[in-house]
Order: sequence, then structure tokens, then C-alpha cells
Amino acid sequence: MDVPPEGLSAQQRLQVEGREIDISPDSPIKAVACTLEPPSLVRPVADAENLIEKLDAFSPEHFDINILRELSTRLREWNWRLTAHLRNRELVAISPPGTRSMGLAVDLGSTKIAGYLMDLATGKKLAAKGIVNPQISHGEDIITRINFAIRSPDGQKRMADLIKDTLMSLAQDLCSEAGSETGDILEVVIVGNTAMHHLTLGLPVRQLALSPFVPGVSGDLNVKARDIGLDFAPGAYAYFPPNIAGFVGADHVAALMATAGEWVHGNVIVLDIGTNTEISLINRGKITSVSCASGPAFEGYHISSGVRAAPGAIEKVSLSRGDLHYQTIDDAEPIGICGSGILDAVSQLFLAGVLNSGGRLQKGSHHRVVEKSGCLEFILVPQKKRRRDTVISITQKDVREVQLGKAAIQAALEILLAQGNIAATEIDKIIIAGAFGSYIDISNAVAIGMLPGLPLNRFHQVGNAAGTGARILLLSAARREEMKNLLTRIKYLELGGTPQFSKAFTRACLLGPYNTGPDAAGR
Amino acid sequence: MDVPPEGLSAQQRLQVEGREIDISPDSPIKAVACTLEPPSLVRPVADAENLIEKLDAFSPEHFDINILRELSTRLREWNWRLTAHLRNRELVAISPPGTRSMGLAVDLGSTKIAGYLMDLATGKKLAAKGIVNPQISHGEDIITRINFAIRSPDGQKRMADLIKDTLMSLAQDLCSEAGSETGDILEVVIVGNTAMHHLTLGLPVRQLALSPFVPGVSGDLNVKARDIGLDFAPGAYAYFPPNIAGFVGADHVAALMATAGEWVHGNVIVLDIGTNTEISLINRGKITSVSCASGPAFEGYHISSGVRAAPGAIEKVSLSRGDLHYQTIDDAEPIGICGSGILDAVSQLFLAGVLNSGGRLQKGSHHRVVEKSGCLEFILVPQKKRRRDTVISITQKDVREVQLGKAAIQAALEILLAQGNIAATEIDKIIIAGAFGSYIDISNAVAIGMLPGLPLNRFHQVGNAAGTGARILLLSAARREEMKNLLTRIKYLELGGTPQFSKAFTRACLLGPYNTGPDAAGR
Repeated sequence: MDVPPEGLSAQQRLQVEGREIDISPDSPIKAVACTLEPPSLVRPVADAENLIEKLDAFSPEHFDINILRELSTRLREWNWRLTAHLRNRELVAISPPGTRSMGLAVDLGSTKIAGYLMDLATGKKLAAKGIVNPQISHGEDIITRINFAIRSPDGQKRMADLIKDTLMSLAQDLCSEAGSETGDILEVVIVGNTAMHHLTLGLPVRQLALSPFVPGVSGDLNVKARDIGLDFAPGAYAYFPPNIAGFVGADHVAALMATAGEWVHGNVIVLDIGTNTEISLINRGKITSVSCASGPAFEGYHISSGVRAAPGAIEKVSLSRGDLHYQTIDDAEPIGICGSGILDAVSQLFLAGVLNSGGRLQKGSHHRVVEKSGCLEFILVPQKKRRRDTVISITQKDVREVQLGKAAIQAALEILLAQGNIAATEIDKIIIAGAFGSYIDISNAVAIGMLPGLPLNRFHQVGNAAGTGARILLLSAARREEMKNLLTRIKYLELGGTPQFSKAFTRACLLGPYNTGPDAAGR
Repeated sequence: MDVPPEGLSAQQRLQVEGREIDISPDSPIKAVACTLEPPSLVRPVADAENLIEKLDAFSPEHFDINILRELSTRLREWNWRLTAHLRNRELVAISPPGTRSMGLAVDLGSTKIAGYLMDLATGKKLAAKGIVNPQISHGEDIITRINFAIRSPDGQKRMADLIKDTLMSLAQDLCSEAGSETGDILEVVIVGNTAMHHLTLGLPVRQLALSPFVPGVSGDLNVKARDIGLDFAPGAYAYFPPNIAGFVGADHVAALMATAGEWVHGNVIVLDIGTNTEISLINRGKITSVSCASGPAFEGYHISSGVRAAPGAIEKVSLSRGDLHYQTIDDAEPIGICGSGILDAVSQLFLAGVLNSGGRLQKGSHHRVVEKSGCLEFILVPQKKRRRDTVISITQKDVREVQLGKAAIQAALEILLAQGNIAATEIDKIIIAGAFGSYIDISNAVAIGMLPGLPLNRFHQVGNAAGTGARILLLSAARREEMKNLLTRIKYLELGGTPQFSKAFTRACLLGPYNTGPDAAGR
């Protein structure tokens, strides 16, 4: 051995939207620099055994076959000097001396995919990028996609291929930004909801959509990257953290890992709002998790003028004494309305009396309420101000979509609290994760009852905690162990199809403040 | 668990050409019958974890990704009953209750490939078949094939593909004979010389052909069958026993395993004659191994009228008081001469004085010696007796090929003995393995000096011991461990390019009895 294993000392701070997390990188991949003695007629040792001797301190047990396929050639090309990359007791890559050790962390959302290229030795972020999940062309919500996978010829394979191609192209972009190559990616950690997890791995999804909604597998998986079609380092692994249940996936586990440092004594809620929303209640060391289908409205889908959060998307709306104000991303010409804008609009229209508590647009309540093909809608941006053909408006149907989403979240939260015998007022902290959650106006969410009416300082918007969790799990073997510990404390509560949930959901469809009293959720 | 693990009690006897070996099948694959409790809303356990619970006694650690890809569907199809096939702590296959556990043993020779489909639980042979190694179209000897792999565009891949396709087609033939499918093959054991091992695995071979002739890897390998292109059970492994050196491969290790029960106190020689010949000397618990390039003449290649051992091949030749007699396989019309026939012919011609000790055909020594294009040849079958155009003859060049082959074997044996300070007369047993070795006439081999002149009862022709060894290693995990023990006792002696070998080789090119005295090999 020429030098000690790399990357065991640096301390790195990972950002979670304004917060920082300390992490000492101790990736499962260890880089060991070696200089071998060339074989001779006196010592005609095979190349692999020659290297094994040098790696003795790491008790190497297994060489990936792809390493063996290049080892003899490379040893001679590199003049018997190399860096060996060991994962536990397996040799997963070899590189010329001094090559950087890189890993990829991926948050695989139903709608968005975020990728982070990381230096495994220093813990530094080398590049980051977000893209749209291309599966969205086969359904915006999870159930539609599961149905596509089940019913279309080759549907399952097509869904897996879409992800594979997208991840490869994301990895290529990140690597070229960092001046590296995808062949140097030694490990990838992928977190997503259970359906995304299964579709990426090519696992059957039919049982996910049928009661009792069980995953094919819930434990964490170490899979050869090549076995899911990813062309990284020769022996690279893809690590999939565990799922909690059919609709509480590894992305929520990652969000819990990323936010655990912010949990306080008392009652903490971790809320990850997306097309599917996961909620965990942390109370006296126990964690109870639920999930609900909150729909893609908050991602800008299923909304008549809805767009993704991109320049020109209306992200904030206020209606003060009849005067409408809105703000677009980058102050660009308005192109549509994104999730946080929709939430603001519905809340502000409700507070202004344009919507009644049933969510019905009130004719004559505002001059912007117009009738079109027999249906009412509220005009946000009239046609004259826009280059495109149609106006930007909030239709009655749009309001219904928001009501369904907010009702699902509200009902799930109510039941979770009721089950823990906790009143909403007793929540000490609500940690809101997810891109949408970072941008919403909490007061507006509280006004329609999506969130309970608590002092604003109890809400903490932490951004893409799942992505941060993925990075933590990529960089630290110790954190992977901690995660397994955390998992033993999680109890999953199935809401799907229970009468209690249906009842709470129906009630929560009404706009208006969340009932924070002790008799909430029918206690 | 419904029933105890299968296949732990049966005792099976494997044949080694007339001999039998006791073996208690204890394949590394254990079949466990399970009935699972279906998940429910009360117990919404994931499918994999549901099965893991049932397999608790076997501490399952890992499910092959391909198993996970079918598990959920199959569990429901099979009504929650299945047989789980565990290899160590990994689940490698699932099947409906009562499916037979099968494995494939392959002896991958340079010239011939022998396949054996085995029942892993009972140890019974279900089917067997031998075919020609298709790589032969890229060179009959190993060095030519290595050069093809190195120098042709894509040569390495083409060599691997040829083997892959041949093994799949061999497996299909064997399975259809046994009424099974290749998808039911749970494990394959492949033994071959080091070059065949590397070409099958897609490992670089350039260094095998250059001093100091080292393998890419010598230790045993457990590789996913899919990673070498074999489409067997979803998680099936290919097991490659270890190589001893660049030119003493796993096939010789397998031959040693198959014959170890026949070793006696004193000095034992295990001799595996092929295109490459491996020789081991077993003496006081130590094993010394050498190898030499004996060429393809004994397989019927590089011989003017040479054919493989097939119906019509002349397999025996005698020349008694000038009268020529020959025998063909199946007594068919003669089509050419195979290895054992060539050896007989050269030996008998030498004994009859048609060849001198330098191997030169003597004009006028026999009426069948004729001159053609200025070269002498001995006519075995004149044209009139045959349907084809040419006669079957032994040319001067054919004799040279045999001389080179026998000289290599003789010189290697001489040096091996000299190194152990053993006179040839002190050899207690010579075990001759390999298809060619089974059919040769020992007296004729002794007459020209290919084998030492010992009492005939010290010679034991055991047929394809490498194939038997592959079957033993397929059927028994305990024997794999024994093999590792055996390996620690083996010392490899490199002959390539040593002046000692060149000298002994030159001397051994002469026809005539082996010098069995104590001053052999220049001691």
C-alpha cells in the first residue's frame, strides 16, 4: 500500500434549503492506491491474486467480473499502479492513480427527478440538475402509470426503459459539467416512492394498486447498476433504500433521514407534499407514517392553466380589497400558473368570498368571475395581456382539484393525529419537505384548512429533503446503518379505503380552517 | 416450512469410465418448500419480506433482482406456495412446488465440449452430450486462438459469443432430452484450460501468451450466469473452479478431484492428454504440476488424413510381420484416422522398421511406402477401397506432428520426475485422463517413448476425468471446499522456454523407449 485509504477524514456540510447538516463522508466505497510487483517466471502470480495480496488489509472476497475483464490490460497499461475501489469486500472499480471517486444521488419523484453528482471522498457536490420524469407522458398520477405498466404491451419494460434512459442522460449532463465520465460513477443511490422504486427496478406493480397494497419488497437493495441498465463504473452498485409501505417509499425515508437532526421533543410532523403525500408523526421516539393521494394539482398538472414551476409561471397570487396581484417566476411574462400559485389563488378567492366554503365560484362576487360554456371561472390574466390564445384563469374544475388534494392531506393528518391521541394544537413542529412545500404561502394553506392553524414559527419549509437524504445515504455508510435503526421505529398506518378516512376526507373537502380542537377527526 | 430441505440424504455413485465414485449430493443450492400467508390490511407485509420470514432458518441475505422481478406475480399465480432455491444466503430461483432442481456440468475442452445435465437433489445424470468446440474454426491450438482474440477486430467478444451460443444450444439439447427447460438450470460448473476459462469469461488473454504466462485470475469464481450471456434460472450462478497456472487450468483441477480417490501411497502421475497436456506428480501429499503444448495431432487435427473420433475413423492400427490391420469406429467404412489410430500407426511403423528412430519413412521398407510429389507416405487405405478421392495415408509430416506431441509429453514428464528426484521406474501408478487417453494402446505409446516402460497394470485409463470432476463440483459444496484444500498442496512448475525443457524435448523427438533410468533428464 502506498497511501492510506482516501476520504475518511473530511467533514462536509450538506445544505437543506437554508439549513446545514454535518456529515463525515464515509462512503461504502474505499479508494486504495496500490503499486504491484510485476509477475515473473520466479513469481508467476495471476493478476487478480497479485492485486488481492496488496488489498489484504481489506480482506477482498470478490472481484466483479467486469473488473476482471479489464484488469490484466489496465495493470500493464498503468505500469502496475492503480487505485482500487472496494465496496465492503468487493472490488467494484479500478482507475489510474489519483482519479476522483464519484457517486450519484437521485431523488426520483413522480413528476421531477433531481440528480446530484458527489465527490465520495470529500462529500462535495460536483454538479446538480433537475429534470421532468418522462413517465409523466403515461400518466400524471401513480395509479395511471401502474395501470399503463400492467395493461400496455411491454408497459412494464417501457416504464423501466424511460427511467433508465433519463438517468443515463442526467448522469451524462452532470458528468460533463464536472469534467468527468459516467464510467467513473462508483455508486448511485436512488430514492423514490414505492411505485417509482418498483418501476425503476422492473418489479411487478399490480399488487401495489390492489388491497392490501403491498410492495414487492420493502427492505433496502444493493443491485448491480448494470442490472437496471445503468452504464456506470464496471462493478458499480445502485443502492435503493427501503420502502415503508406500498405508498410510503424510500423518498420519505430519505426525507426523515435528512430532517432527523431538526426533530424536537414533543410532537413533530414531517410532511412531504407531492402527487402522493407522505406524513410522519414523530412522538416519544416512535414514528407513525401515513400516505395519501393528493394528486398532481400542486405540481401544476390537471389544472386548466397549470404549468410546472418555470419562468413565467404565476407562483404567488393575492386579492386584497378586490385588487388582484400576482407574481411570476423570474418576473417573466405570465405563461400559466404553478402549484403554489394555484394554492394562493384558491385561498385568496375563498377569503375574498369569491369561493364559498363548498368551493363554488360565486356569480357576481368579483368582476373577474365570468361564465364560459355554462361554467364559471375567475380570470387571472385576460387575453389582451398575453401572446397566446387563451386567458389564464381558475376554473370551477381547478378549484375542485385543489379541494381534493387539500382534503386528502388534511384528512390524513387528522387521522394520524387522532391515532396518536394528539390535538393539532399540540404539534410542536411541522417540517414541510418537497419542492412545492418550499414555495407555498403557509398562511394561505392554513386559511383553507390544508394545514392546521398554528403559529407560523412552528412551520419549517426545508425544500427537497428526499434529495438531501439520498446524498447523505450516498456519502455515509454509517448513516445507512442509522437508517435501518430508524426504520425499526416506524409504524405504517394504512388509510386506503377505511371508513374513517372517507368520512374525514368528505368533511375536509370544505374550504375553511382546520378543526384543531380535541374533537377533530371524530374523536 | 412444509418439508425439510431436499436432497441431503441420497448417496450417488458417479462413473469414471469403469470406476465409480461415491458422492453424497450436497449441492450449494438448497430447495425449500414454503407456503406463505397472504398479506392483509392487518398484516400488509411486502412479498419479499413475507418469503424471507419463511426462510428464516436459512438466514437469507439477498434476493437476486431477477427473482424480485417475478416474485409478486408468481406468488399470486401459485397461490402462495413455492419452492425457494437458496445458494448460500442468496435466493437464486423460485419454482412451483415439486419442480426438479437441475444443474449443468461442462468440460470445456479446446477441441471437445462435454455437457452433463444433473439432478442436484439425487445426483443422477439426466442427460449427457459431447460436441465440437466451435472456436476450432479460429485455430486448433490455444496460441492460435489467443492470437485471433487479440488481433481480430472484436476477436475477444467473438470467441466469448461462440462459447455462449454453443453452451446455450448444448443446454437446450440436454434439457429437451430430460423434458426440462434451460430456465430450470440452477447452477452451471464450467471447467476448461486457462485459455478457455478466460475466453468464456471474456477476460484478456494476451498475457497468457507472453512470458511469464500468468492468468488474469487463478482463484475460483462465482459469476452470474447472465453476466456471461447464459440464460438459465433467473439468479443462476456459473461456478468456475480455480486455475493453477496459465497453462494448467480448472480442467486439470477437476481431473485431480475426480481421481484423488485412486491415488496410492508412493508416486502417482495424473496425465491429461489433449491439445495441451497437463501432468501432475503426487508424492508424499505434495502435488507438482506442469503443462506442455502437445498439439492437436492426438485429436485428429494437423494430420493429412486426420478426423475426429467418429464412426469410420481408424482407431487402431497394427502391422504384424508386414501385414496391415486396422479397425474403424463402429466398423464403418474408413473415413480417416483419429488420434489413437495415428499413435498406433506411428508406433507400429517404427517397430516394423518402416520409420527409423529419427521418424524418417524408409524407402523400400514396405510396399505401402510410396513417393508423392517428392515426399514419402505410407498408404493405410488405397483409393480403390474408398468412395472419396484421396487415399488414407500417413505422411512424413504426420509423423513429425506425432513426434512433436509425444516429445512434449515425454520431456515434461522427464523434467517433472527429475525435479522430484524420482526415476520413472519408481512411478507406482499412471492415471491417464482425457478422451484420447482412454483409447490409446499403452504398449504402442510405450514403444515410441511417449510413456515410460512400466508394467501395464500401473497404467489406468479413466476417460474424461475433468468432466467427472465438474460433476462432482456441481453436486457437492463439500467437495468444493476439499478442492481448495487440494489446491494449497499444488506447486506449479513452469517449463516454458527453460533450456532444460528444450534439451529434453529435442532428445525426446527420437522414437524409441523412454529412458527410465536414474540418469534420465540429465540428472
